[in-house]
Amino acid sequence: MNYQSLSVAELSAERDRLQAAHREFCSHGLSLNMARGKPSPTQLDLSAAFLGAPHTHLSATGTDCRNYSTLNDLPETAALFSELLGVPEDYIIVGGNSSLNLMYDTLCRMLLFGTLGSEPWVHNKQRKFLCPAPGYDRHFAVTEALGFELITIPMTETGPDMDLVERLVAEDENIKGIWNIPLYSNPGGVVYSDETVERLARMKTAAPDFRIMWDNAYGVHHLYEPVALRDIFEACEQAGNLDRVFYFFSTSKVSFPGGGVAMMAMSPANKEEALRRISIQTIGADKLNQLRLLHNLPTAEAVHAHMRKQADLLRPRFEEVLTTLERELGDSGLAHWNSPRGGYFISVDVLPGCAKRVVALAREAGVTLTGAGATFPYKKDPKDSNIRLAPTYPGIEELRQAVDLFCLCVKLAGAEKLLAEAQ
Amino acid sequence: MNYQSLSVAELSAERDRLQAAHREFCSHGLSLNMARGKPSPTQLDLSAAFLGAPHTHLSATGTDCRNYSTLNDLPETAALFSELLGVPEDYIIVGGNSSLNLMYDTLCRMLLFGTLGSEPWVHNKQRKFLCPAPGYDRHFAVTEALGFELITIPMTETGPDMDLVERLVAEDENIKGIWNIPLYSNPGGVVYSDETVERLARMKTAAPDFRIMWDNAYGVHHLYEPVALRDIFEACEQAGNLDRVFYFFSTSKVSFPGGGVAMMAMSPANKEEALRRISIQTIGADKLNQLRLLHNLPTAEAVHAHMRKQADLLRPRFEEVLTTLERELGDSGLAHWNSPRGGYFISVDVLPGCAKRVVALAREAGVTLTGAGATFPYKKDPKDSNIRLAPTYPGIEELRQAVDLFCLCVKLAGAEKLLAEAQ
Repeated sequence: MNYQSLSVAELSAERDRLQAAHREFCSHGLSLNMARGKPSPTQLDLSAAFLGAPHTHLSATGTDCRNYSTLNDLPETAALFSELLGVPEDYIIVGGNSSLNLMYDTLCRMLLFGTLGSEPWVHNKQRKFLCPAPGYDRHFAVTEALGFELITIPMTETGPDMDLVERLVAEDENIKGIWNIPLYSNPGGVVYSDETVERLARMKTAAPDFRIMWDNAYGVHHLYEPVALRDIFEACEQAGNLDRVFYFFSTSKVSFPGGGVAMMAMSPANKEEALRRISIQTIGADKLNQLRLLHNLPTAEAVHAHMRKQADLLRPRFEEVLTTLERELGDSGLAHWNSPRGGYFISVDVLPGCAKRVVALAREAGVTLTGAGATFPYKKDPKDSNIRLAPTYPGIEELRQAVDLFCLCVKLAGAEKLLAEAQ
Repeated sequence: MNYQSLSVAELSAERDRLQAAHREFCSHGLSLNMARGKPSPTQLDLSAAFLGAPHTHLSATGTDCRNYSTLNDLPETAALFSELLGVPEDYIIVGGNSSLNLMYDTLCRMLLFGTLGSEPWVHNKQRKFLCPAPGYDRHFAVTEALGFELITIPMTETGPDMDLVERLVAEDENIKGIWNIPLYSNPGGVVYSDETVERLARMKTAAPDFRIMWDNAYGVHHLYEPVALRDIFEACEQAGNLDRVFYFFSTSKVSFPGGGVAMMAMSPANKEEALRRISIQTIGADKLNQLRLLHNLPTAEAVHAHMRKQADLLRPRFEEVLTTLERELGDSGLAHWNSPRGGYFISVDVLPGCAKRVVALAREAGVTLTGAGATFPYKKDPKDSNIRLAPTYPGIEELRQAVDLFCLCVKLAGAEKLLAEAQ
C-alpha cells in the first residue's frame, strides 16, 4: 500500500488502525534496544578463549610482556595488522583498547603542536572539519568538543559528495580534515568507490596540513563475500600526499568491545612525529592484551575465519530486518533504506519531519532506537529523516518484535504527516 | 678512608689503584642495568594468576564486561581503590593501563579547555610548573612537552621546600601547578610530612586554577611497616581548596607494569568536568582487565598481603645496596644517600661535578645507570651530583656486582675531582 496515494479518508482510517496497533504494542511491556552497535552475548561467546591467559608472556623477540618496555615494541602485533589490512607494517602504531581514543589524541596533538612544522590548530579559531552525514555521532562529537565548526557533507552511494568536498577544501584553509568510515559506513553501509578514494587522495587543499581521518572500523566485518576498498595509502602516495592520511582500526568488534587492541597507521614522517609525542604521554600500551589477541588469532586468515563465524550470526539478523522492511514498507512510499554488505548498521530514511516522531513512538512501546538526528553534526538532521537501526545485539525473536514495531511506527508517523499536510 | 683529608700523593696513589680496579671490572664483560624502576621476573611471577581469565565476565551489578558500556561503570574497581587508598569512592575515575597517560591527558584538558570556567592554559604563553627535584623525569618531560616553563624546587627531607613554593605561587599567576610523589618519592624516597601536605593544601595561589598533581605511585609499596601519609583531600577540603588536587595511582607495580589498572581521583566538580570531556575521548577503559585485578585482589587486605610478598623480594635488594654503600662510601666524604622505607629507588648525591663521570665510568664497565641529570628539569642537574639507583630489577648477585662497581666509580670520580682541585 502506497500511503502517498491514499485519500484523506483512507489515510485517516489507516492512522486509526495503526494507533490501535501501537497501543496494543505498548501494552506488551517490551524492553528492547536497537540503538547501539554492540555484539550480542552469543557473538561474544565466540571469543571466549580471548579472556584467558596467553600461552606465553614472551614476545617473538623475547620481550617480557609483563614488564615495562618501550612504545610500539611488539612487532608481531603490527605484523598481524599489516597482513590483515594491507597497511605497511612500518606505518603502524599499536595503541590501547580504543581507536576512538587514538583519533581524539591524534587531533589533540594537531591542536597543541600542529604537524610537520604547521601552526598548532588551537590558535586557529575558525578551524573546521568536514563531516559526511549521515555518519558516526562520536566522530562528530570529537571535533565539536575540540572546537571545530562542523560542515555537513551529504553522503552518496559512493562516499561523500566529492564535488562539494573538493570545492570546499580548495577554497578554505581553515578546513583541517574530514571524517571517513570508508567501508560499510556507519550508518549507511556505504563502501567508498575507488574514484572517491582517489579524489580524496589527490584533491588540492588550501590547508597544507589537511588530514583525512580514515576510520576503517569495519575493515574485516563482511556479512557476505569481502568487498575490496581502494588502498588509501597507495592512492595518497601516488598523488604525492602520503602525509595526508591517519588510518585507524581496532579489534573491538573482532574480540571484545573496549577489551581489544586498537591501532593507527600513518606515513613515516607522521609516525616519527606521533611516536615522539606519545612517548611523553605513556610508557606503552598493554602488551599482555596484544599477546591474548596474537595467540588466539595469529594470522590474517585466522581473523577472517573468526569473522566468518560472527557473520553467520549477524547475517540472519540483518536479513530479518531487511525482509521485514521490504514486506512492510517496500511499496509504502514512506521510507527507503540501504542493504549493507557488512558493518553494524542499517540506515533508514523516513519521510522528512518524521524521524523524531518514529523514535518517540518506538520508545513509548518499549523499543529504544538511536536518537533521531544522532547521525548528523550537532545531532541535527536538517530533514529529520534519518534513523539508524542496530540489529546486532538483540536475539532474532526480539529483533523481529522490534522491527515489526519500527515499521508500524514509520507507517503511523507517515500517515500522521500526510494527513497533516492534506488538511 | 675520608678522601677529603688525603694528601695529593695519597689521592694520586688511590686514583691509580681505582683505575686499575676499574680496568679489571671492564674486562669482566658485565651487562647490568640499574637504570629503570622495573620489577624483576621473580617479582612478576608473584602475579602469575593475573594473566588468566577472570572467574566471570559479569560485574557485581551484572554488567557484561565483554561488551561496551559507559565510562567508569564498574563500581567495584572504584570501591577497591577507595578502600586501598582511603580516597572517597565517588571521587574516583578508573582509567586504562597507564597513570602517566591519565596525568598527560588531564593536563591536556587544562590546556585545551581550562577548568571550572578558567581560561584554557594553552593561551597563556608564560605558563609554568613547579618541579620538586630530584624528581621523576617523566613528570618533568610531560610539562616540558606541553609548553610549561619548569621551575626547580629543591626537595628536603619532608617534601619540597615549602617556603619557596608558597612564595612563588603567591606572586606568579602563571604558575599553574606542582608535581608530587608524596610517598617514597622518586628518587629520594621522601615521605611528605603532614605539615608539607597541609601547606600545599592551604597556600594562597595567584592562579585560581592552580593544581596539585598528586602521583601516589608508591602508595602501597612499603618495604617495612607502612608509613602514613596525610590525606590530601581532607587537607584541601579543610582549607577550602578541594578542587586543587588531582590524585593518581596505578597497579603497574602491584601486578604488571603497563598491564595493570590506573585511576585518578578528584573533587566532585572536577570529576564531573573530567568525565564530561573523557566521554568524548573514549567509550570506556578495558573492564576485563579490571575484572582480572578484582578477582585476584578483591580487597585492600589482599593487595597488602600481595605487596608484602613483593617487599620480601625487594627488601634484600635495597639492603644489599645500602649495606655496600655504607661499607664502601660511609666515611669517604664522597657521597650521601637516602635509606628509603618504600618505593623503587635509592638516591645518591656524589661530589658536585661528578655524577656524569660516575655514570660514564659505570657504563664503560657494562653497568647502565639512570642518566645523570635525569632527575632534574630539562635533564640538567645544576650541581651534576644526583644519581638514581634502581635496585629492583637485577638479581641479588648481579646487584652486588653492579653496586660494587658503582662505589668504585664514585671513589674514582671523587679522587679525580679532588686531585684536579688540589693541582
